[in-house]
Amino acid sequence: MRISELSATSGVPVPTIKYYLREGLLPQGVSTAATRAEYGEAHLRRLRLIRALLEVGGLPVAAIAKIVAAVEDEDTPVHTMLGTAHYALAPAVEEDPGDEERARARGRVDRLIGDLGWQVRADAPTRAELAWILARLERLGRPAPEEDLRHYASVVMDLVSGHEMGKIPWDGTREAAVESLVVGTVLYGRIFDVLRRLAHESASARLLGA
Amino acid sequence: MRISELSATSGVPVPTIKYYLREGLLPQGVSTAATRAEYGEAHLRRLRLIRALLEVGGLPVAAIAKIVAAVEDEDTPVHTMLGTAHYALAPAVEEDPGDEERARARGRVDRLIGDLGWQVRADAPTRAELAWILARLERLGRPAPEEDLRHYASVVMDLVSGHEMGKIPWDGTREAAVESLVVGTVLYGRIFDVLRRLAHESASARLLGA
Repeated sequence: MRISELSATSGVPVPTIKYYLREGLLPQGVSTAATRAEYGEAHLRRLRLIRALLEVGGLPVAAIAKIVAAVEDEDTPVHTMLGTAHYALAPAVEEDPGDEERARARGRVDRLIGDLGWQVRADAPTRAELAWILARLERLGRPAPEEDLRHYASVVMDLVSGHEMGKIPWDGTREAAVESLVVGTVLYGRIFDVLRRLAHESASARLLGA
Repeated sequence: MRISELSATSGVPVPTIKYYLREGLLPQGVSTAATRAEYGEAHLRRLRLIRALLEVGGLPVAAIAKIVAAVEDEDTPVHTMLGTAHYALAPAVEEDPGDEERARARGRVDRLIGDLGWQVRADAPTRAELAWILARLERLGRPAPEEDLRHYASVVMDLVSGHEMGKIPWDGTREAAVESLVVGTVLYGRIFDVLRRLAHESASARLLGA
């Protein structure tokens, strides 16, 4: 299809498609004349992925470019490719080596993950993120009890292994796996969070007889 | 204690305390001379609550004033008081009556809550928030399957009734209950979210043999 058709089918404006082509997010089409190129299904799939990373993940173009590079490089194992997207989605938490509370919390996070036997890289930004929240609770004078963390961890692992991992289309394209991961992480994370707050209201109404 | 001592004990600077006094967030102290007032435990408790609403809840002063008014008014039932804080914490989602997808999603949310038998007010902002996410998934061409929503709802209600409701200090002060709700909603919500992402990495590493 021509670029105008690619735009109509994907809903992405032509100037934006041209921008993605310049930035290398979208592979060039097959030239059919000096100023014409043909685009296909692969371009539609890629535009769909870019849209998910941009709109759902809220990621900057530089982060999207890194993820797209991992998707395009067939030598990058699927787990590593997914990790690139996964880490990009984690909110940045600045390390602060002078913060003793944070260092203690980080030690606690590392011990917890070790005790649970979870396979998480030592440099995963999620470790630093959890440590930051735990240090914050300490500073508020409300340290998170160990049993609460373990209870949450067990609920979460049941949900992830028993349900969420099965939702990723492992037998589809690499693009589809990443897109599914992004939507699952961000939007299903939000669904869980809203349902939790709805459940709070209902449980409180019942408990307090409102 | 004097205002300087209240500041030293609470860690809140004197000018900030004076600002809270002017805004009515903090009750006046007992005057002991023309320019002196005595403050007590109740002021410390209130400052702790304001700090949680401000720093953890990220709420503007106007929202905090509404919550403080509900805390102070002993005629306001505990469930209503908690609801004031709870609704203030929900991200604002603009209603859009012209958006048919959103209207359909809202109908779906209302049916789900009805089917589950959850006691949630018809005007709860959490209903609109969930509808917004569901409409977004529709627009991405990835509608959320009903069984997934029900699975999440059941996991969430187990967590809330079986675990989280027991964490609120029902026999303490009204301030303590609200503070606990805010910290539980925001920071424990984030703990759950980070643990979920840690679990994703681990489950993916296992599944893909990395």
